[in-house]
Amino acid sequence: MSVPLEVARDIMLKAVSVAAAEEVALADCWRRVLAEEIVAAADFPPFDRSPLDGYALVAAEVTGAAPQRPVTLEVVDDIPAGSVPRADVRPGTAAKIMTGAPVPAGATGVVRREDTREADGRVAIFAGAGAAANICRRGEEIAAGEKVVAAGTVVNVGAMGLLALLGKARPRVYKRPRVALLATGSEVADVDAPLPPGAIRNSNSYMLTAQVLDAGAEPVLLGVARDEVPVIIGRLATAGDCDMIVTTGGVSAGDYDLLTDVYREMGIEVLFDRVGIKPGMPVLAGFRDGKPYVGLSGNPAAASVAFEQIVRPALLKMGGRRDIWRPRTEALLIAPFVKTSGAVRFVWARCQPVNGSLTVEPLPLQGNGMLKSAVAANAMIVIPAGSPPLAAGSMVEVCLLADL
Amino acid sequence: MSVPLEVARDIMLKAVSVAAAEEVALADCWRRVLAEEIVAAADFPPFDRSPLDGYALVAAEVTGAAPQRPVTLEVVDDIPAGSVPRADVRPGTAAKIMTGAPVPAGATGVVRREDTREADGRVAIFAGAGAAANICRRGEEIAAGEKVVAAGTVVNVGAMGLLALLGKARPRVYKRPRVALLATGSEVADVDAPLPPGAIRNSNSYMLTAQVLDAGAEPVLLGVARDEVPVIIGRLATAGDCDMIVTTGGVSAGDYDLLTDVYREMGIEVLFDRVGIKPGMPVLAGFRDGKPYVGLSGNPAAASVAFEQIVRPALLKMGGRRDIWRPRTEALLIAPFVKTSGAVRFVWARCQPVNGSLTVEPLPLQGNGMLKSAVAANAMIVIPAGSPPLAAGSMVEVCLLADL
Repeated sequence: MSVPLEVARDIMLKAVSVAAAEEVALADCWRRVLAEEIVAAADFPPFDRSPLDGYALVAAEVTGAAPQRPVTLEVVDDIPAGSVPRADVRPGTAAKIMTGAPVPAGATGVVRREDTREADGRVAIFAGAGAAANICRRGEEIAAGEKVVAAGTVVNVGAMGLLALLGKARPRVYKRPRVALLATGSEVADVDAPLPPGAIRNSNSYMLTAQVLDAGAEPVLLGVARDEVPVIIGRLATAGDCDMIVTTGGVSAGDYDLLTDVYREMGIEVLFDRVGIKPGMPVLAGFRDGKPYVGLSGNPAAASVAFEQIVRPALLKMGGRRDIWRPRTEALLIAPFVKTSGAVRFVWARCQPVNGSLTVEPLPLQGNGMLKSAVAANAMIVIPAGSPPLAAGSMVEVCLLADL
Repeated sequence: MSVPLEVARDIMLKAVSVAAAEEVALADCWRRVLAEEIVAAADFPPFDRSPLDGYALVAAEVTGAAPQRPVTLEVVDDIPAGSVPRADVRPGTAAKIMTGAPVPAGATGVVRREDTREADGRVAIFAGAGAAANICRRGEEIAAGEKVVAAGTVVNVGAMGLLALLGKARPRVYKRPRVALLATGSEVADVDAPLPPGAIRNSNSYMLTAQVLDAGAEPVLLGVARDEVPVIIGRLATAGDCDMIVTTGGVSAGDYDLLTDVYREMGIEVLFDRVGIKPGMPVLAGFRDGKPYVGLSGNPAAASVAFEQIVRPALLKMGGRRDIWRPRTEALLIAPFVKTSGAVRFVWARCQPVNGSLTVEPLPLQGNGMLKSAVAANAMIVIPAGSPPLAAGSMVEVCLLADL
């Protein structure tokens, strides 16, 4: 059954479930996906806090202070960071205070140390205007009960800092889906095996290893199986507790029946077997015992595009991500693209901003040799089915491969 | 000594050296940096190869073949993928061939199986025009001796596939620099410790953990040290073989002397102590025994920006990267930014393409509370020193935090 891209995506998304959650030490949470909404248990700052070294005092008393009109106050406390005030501040008094220390009761402002001179238990204030602004108020950044980070968020630099700030030592994150990768093909030799005449290297499993990792999942390499149904079935049996099984090869016109036979013998229900995209048409998607099986083309360009367009969104859903679609935008085509196709086509490309506008250049070698282009690619041009040849200067739709 | 940003970057870059290389299993090379130029040892494809299932034959013999004018040939061989031809193809003969199999000597084209019918050792060819194009020529994608991936390249999807294709089972990659992270401050409690009155959590070490990982390096958490010179020195002694030591706190106006004292006692040469950027001015950069030391502000916004602008390029250089600068572009400011400053200012922002043009929105809470903004940020607006307030609709320079 051949299906349009949107239908294939939809079927794949329905076939997968969101992974279970686990608690992970915060230092190991970068790029993980939060499985809990992070709610602040307390205000931050947890107390009125001085943003600088100086003297906490009654702000109204020092408004007019100047070098030639100093205001002199009695120093009643010395509050280093990490301590708590031992005395309140009353009119006529001040407390020495360090950056980050709690502002004592009674104080309504802080004057920075550079505008003061302390001697014999008294401090002369030389500039007091603006003292009231030098207090970071309790809760001014985060209020207790505030929803700070949503579930489904990828833990980035800001989220790591926030989780720490809120004392989340072991946040709940989704388990990383485990994806078994098997290359089929009697002509395929693994990267560390001898290369007999007539053989080529298994590049698909490694290309897909990077694509799986980029989707936040964990690749499990099952190696290479030659083109025999029992051999492939035997190797797939080693997938163990993997959450998705992806194979390459055995799905194109001639040897098409091979993976179909494997699915039939294993009792894998076929969801679809072709998708209207170019490259990447042969995709034998199946389902058994709650697990999705995906048979991709043995051609690297086809396998890579089909994974990117059909498998990746499902894998992101499994990993708990809410934003499962790559950012799309328009960009100015800076070289012609003349190939036409009855199916939607994806073209490896390099997208670059120039004076605030996005330009995009299709990269050469879209066939088997696409790996060279993929090294430089940061985008895919999306060419709708039935488009005419496109001249340089056309606006085209672009799918960005990195988060902008 | 206060220095401009460019000078600080330059001093840091000169203070660091590129890491040694190590061999790593290809499956573990994603995001690693290649320490060798990858040169193809052989042609790819390694032989003339069929891109489809069909019959290899003398192309000139079947040019005019059609369903009503079939050309019939004797089948002299059957070449599955992974095998080698046992017979040459001569005029009047053909060899059955599978996708990926070597094209036999004498054959000058391949006709796809759908356009043939085989029976009794003979095959009828119904469509032969274009047969000559159905051969992937030896070396047409990669020629032996070709420089395929440059040293200094980050291993992405395409590079992983190419390395596998070329049989690079254990590429040489740069060792990941190890970065010790120590938070100083008597008011700072680590994320899993009790939180006494007057204390706040150590968010800096975790925020920087993410920044270090994002730079391809390995964070080593040294925990929290209270504001006492011997305590800080004792903790820094646990950094062991780390390649860079980054601390937070102890460098702002009042407690400035603390880290200066640590450096003096440890014999760390001071390279500079302030940088003309906002936020992020206090940066105590030092050097001892071939290792850089960087003392950042205890304020998360300041520490994060100074790391991003000054430390990250040096860390990328240490990790073997050649492209150490974030992509910069112009973008349309969609909200006003009114703060002015005598130093260049970096503002967390969200950059989005709209109809092929880039827009950028400054995010709120640039002070301590910047972590909330950093969760959503994908860019920093760069506001030159002395800029006037900027109205919505201005074009501004933007530093993209993700590779576009």
